[in-house]
Amino acid sequence: MIRMYDLIEKKKHGEELTGEEIREMVRGFVSGEIPDYQMSAMLMAIYFRGMSAAETTRLTMEMAHSGDTADLSSIRGIKVDKHSTGGVGDKTSLVIGPLTASLGVKIAKMSGRGLGHTGGTLDKLESIPGLTTSIEKDRFFEIVNRTGIAIIGQTGNMVPADKKLYALRDVTATVDSVPLIASSIMSKKLAAGSDAIVLDVKTGSGAFMKTLEESIALAKEMVAIGTGAGRVCCALITDMDVPLGRAIGNAMEVAEAVQTLKNQGPEDLTEVCLQLAANMLCLAEKGTLQECYAMAKEAMETGRGVDVLAAMVKAQGGDERYIYDPSLFAPAPYERQVLAPRDGYVVQIDTAGCGIASTMLGAGRAKKEDAINYSAGIYLHKKYGDPVKKGDVLAVLHASDEALFDGAERRFLDSYVIGDAPAAEKRHIYARVTAEGVERY
Amino acid sequence: MIRMYDLIEKKKHGEELTGEEIREMVRGFVSGEIPDYQMSAMLMAIYFRGMSAAETTRLTMEMAHSGDTADLSSIRGIKVDKHSTGGVGDKTSLVIGPLTASLGVKIAKMSGRGLGHTGGTLDKLESIPGLTTSIEKDRFFEIVNRTGIAIIGQTGNMVPADKKLYALRDVTATVDSVPLIASSIMSKKLAAGSDAIVLDVKTGSGAFMKTLEESIALAKEMVAIGTGAGRVCCALITDMDVPLGRAIGNAMEVAEAVQTLKNQGPEDLTEVCLQLAANMLCLAEKGTLQECYAMAKEAMETGRGVDVLAAMVKAQGGDERYIYDPSLFAPAPYERQVLAPRDGYVVQIDTAGCGIASTMLGAGRAKKEDAINYSAGIYLHKKYGDPVKKGDVLAVLHASDEALFDGAERRFLDSYVIGDAPAAEKRHIYARVTAEGVERY
Repeated sequence: MIRMYDLIEKKKHGEELTGEEIREMVRGFVSGEIPDYQMSAMLMAIYFRGMSAAETTRLTMEMAHSGDTADLSSIRGIKVDKHSTGGVGDKTSLVIGPLTASLGVKIAKMSGRGLGHTGGTLDKLESIPGLTTSIEKDRFFEIVNRTGIAIIGQTGNMVPADKKLYALRDVTATVDSVPLIASSIMSKKLAAGSDAIVLDVKTGSGAFMKTLEESIALAKEMVAIGTGAGRVCCALITDMDVPLGRAIGNAMEVAEAVQTLKNQGPEDLTEVCLQLAANMLCLAEKGTLQECYAMAKEAMETGRGVDVLAAMVKAQGGDERYIYDPSLFAPAPYERQVLAPRDGYVVQIDTAGCGIASTMLGAGRAKKEDAINYSAGIYLHKKYGDPVKKGDVLAVLHASDEALFDGAERRFLDSYVIGDAPAAEKRHIYARVTAEGVERY
Repeated sequence: MIRMYDLIEKKKHGEELTGEEIREMVRGFVSGEIPDYQMSAMLMAIYFRGMSAAETTRLTMEMAHSGDTADLSSIRGIKVDKHSTGGVGDKTSLVIGPLTASLGVKIAKMSGRGLGHTGGTLDKLESIPGLTTSIEKDRFFEIVNRTGIAIIGQTGNMVPADKKLYALRDVTATVDSVPLIASSIMSKKLAAGSDAIVLDVKTGSGAFMKTLEESIALAKEMVAIGTGAGRVCCALITDMDVPLGRAIGNAMEVAEAVQTLKNQGPEDLTEVCLQLAANMLCLAEKGTLQECYAMAKEAMETGRGVDVLAAMVKAQGGDERYIYDPSLFAPAPYERQVLAPRDGYVVQIDTAGCGIASTMLGAGRAKKEDAINYSAGIYLHKKYGDPVKKGDVLAVLHASDEALFDGAERRFLDSYVIGDAPAAEKRHIYARVTAEGVERY
C-alpha cells in the first residue's frame, strides 16, 4: 500500500512519481481512501513542480480508465473527435461536425455545458426545440452510422477521477496547471473513444490560456499524451483575444453556425472552421492538409453540411426546420442597442468581459445550477479593428428581462476599448502542433 | 467575508497576505468554515512561496490568540520561558529550569510530550513517582511563586489553531516550512505568557533542522516574531548531530539532569546548559552574558539547583527523594550491552537513529497513543570522538522485554559509525541569535 504522504513529499521535492504510484493515487482518491486534504496538497505541489511527460501521460491514462470508457467499434470508419478549450462565441463544433461528417468522417461526440464566461455545445444544441442530448449508447451509435454525426452529453460513470479532481481543483486554486489541464481534457477524450482528436487551443483575453506560449505548451502536452495513448492527434492554436463570429448566446449561435455552413458566416469563424475541418479530415486520412482544406471549402460553398446537421437534429428528436430556417427561433422579448460612446476604432476587446455580459443577460451560467435563457445574448455589429462613429450601434443585447440590461451594458462597454488609431491586424490561427512539432503561422 | 480561494491564489502567486486576510483565515479554519482541503493547498503554497516577516508575525499572533492565553501577572518577577526544537537526550529543561530559578528567575513552563525519535519534558518528569503535570492555574502560579519553577502540561483550550494546523501539516507533508515551524512554536510560547523566551534551536542529524544555515534561519524568524510581539527573545543554535549527554530514556535522563545540577554531568550537556542558563539569566536582567554565565557556573558548582528541583517535584505531588537519590529509580528488568564490532573511533552518529532505537525499547512513542516505559532507554558509554576497541561496551540498552533488544540493537549499531581515524572536534554551540543579529561561535 502506497502512502499518500510519501507521494506528496516526493512531488514536493520535484521527484518523478512512478506509474504504480500514480495508479494507486488515482484509485485511492476515487475510492475515497485518500482524503481531499492530501490530494489538494499534492495538486498544489504539482502546480509548483509540474509533471514530466511520462507522469502526465500516466495520470491521464489512469483517469481515463477510472470509470466507463466508450467502445465505438460498432461505428464504421474513422471516428474523429474535436475539443476546444473554450471561449466566447465558439460555435465551431456545430459547423465542423456536420461539415466533416458530410465528407465521410464519423463524429461521435460527447460534449459539455457552458460555465462562467464560456458557452457549451450542449446548451447551444438544446436551444433547438425537442432536441435531446441524453441518448443511450446503441441509439447514439445508430445515429452516427446513419447521419455521420451525433453530439450527446457524457453517459454513465465516465472519468469519475476527473470529475472529483476537477471539483477539488476548482476550490483550491489549482486549476491553472498545464499538466493538470492537459490530463483532465485528454482523459475525457481518451475515454470517449475516438480514433483521432483535433484540439482547438484558444489563446487570448477570452481564453483560459492568455499567451501564445502558454497555449502552445498546453497543446504540445495534450498532443504528446494523445499520441502516447495511440491516438492520432493534432492541435491548432486559435485566437480568442476577440469573440469568435458575431453571435454570443445559444440560439443566435446555432443560427450563425447554419449561416457559416452555407458559406455566409463571419470571416473569422469561417476561416477557423475551415482550418479545423481540414485537420479533422486529414486525421481521418482523406488527403493532405491542402487537399482537405480544399474539400472543406468546397463542402462549405455547396452548403452540404446543413443537411447533415438537420439530419442529426432530427435524429436527436429536434425540430430540423429550425436548421433550414433559423428565423423560427423565437427572439428574446427585449433588445437594447449599445452605442459607441466616441469616434475611433475598436482596438481591444476584453473577451471574457463580453462573455460575462452575455451570462448576465441569461445566456450562460454563473453557477452549475443556473438555468439558461436560449434566446438571450449579444450580437456584435462592430468587431475588432472596425472604425466606429459616436452613436454607432456596437452591439445589440437580447434578454427576457429589461432589468438585466443596465448591468450587462456597463460590463459590455467596459470590455470594448475604442482608440484613436486603427488596430493592428490579428491572426485567426497562430500555430499548428502535431506529434512532429510546432508550425507557427 | 474573505474568500479562502482568493487567498490561496494570492499566496500561490507570491503575493503578501494582509493582517485582515490572515485573521479571517485562522478564524475560519478554527471554526471549520474553511475546510481542510483549502487549508492544505494554502500550506503547500506557503511551503513553496514562504511568508514575509510581517505575514509570519501576523499568523503567529492570530494563532496565539485563537484560544485561551496564560496571564502570568500574578507571578512576581521576570518570567522566562525556554523552548527546544527537540532532540535525543535533551534534558536541558530539567537542569536550567531549577538552576536559573535558584538565581531568582521565574519559570512558569508549559511543556510537551515526546513523539517519534525525540523525548518530551513531561514524560521525563512523570517518571518520578507521584508527580503530576496536570495542575490548575492558581496552584501553578502558587508553586512558581514559592519554589521559582513549575513545569506542567498545556491547560485549557490553548492555541487551537496550532493544534488543528499541525495535525493537517503532519499528514500533508507541509511540516518542513520555516515560517510554519516558527509560527507554530512561537504561537505557543506567546500564549504561554512569559516575558522572555530563550530558544534552543537544535541542528544536525538528530534535529529537525539538519544544517546550520537552516537552523539559523529558523532562529532568526522566531526571534523576530518574539521581538515583534513585545517579548525579549534570543536563540542558541546547539548541536544535535550527536545525542546530548549519555542518557536516553526518561528516568535515566532525570538522573543525569540531577547529576548535571551537581556539576557532575557529561561535558556537552553541562556546557549547553550553562550557556542556555546564562542567556535566560541575561534576559531576566541579572547581568551581562559573562556575568550570568559565571553565576550559572557558580550555582552548578554549589549544586543549589537540586533543592529547587526537589521542591518543584514535591509541590507537583512527586516523591522528592528520587531527586536526592536517583538510584531509587527502579532499573529496567533487562539490560543488554552493545559491543563495538571493531577497533577505531566513533566518527559519526545518526542521532535520529539512536532516538528510534530508544523508542523501540519502550522509552518513547511512535504514535501519540503509545504508552511509555519510564525505565527503558539507552546509556551511551562511548560517545562521538571516543576511541574504541573491538568488544568494548558502546552502550547499554534497558528494556522490560528481552524481545525488544534484537531490533533496537541493530538500529543502534546502524547509527554508530566507527572509523579508522579520529573524528573532527565538534562544537556544542554554533551561534547565538538576538534581535540585533547573529553571532557565530
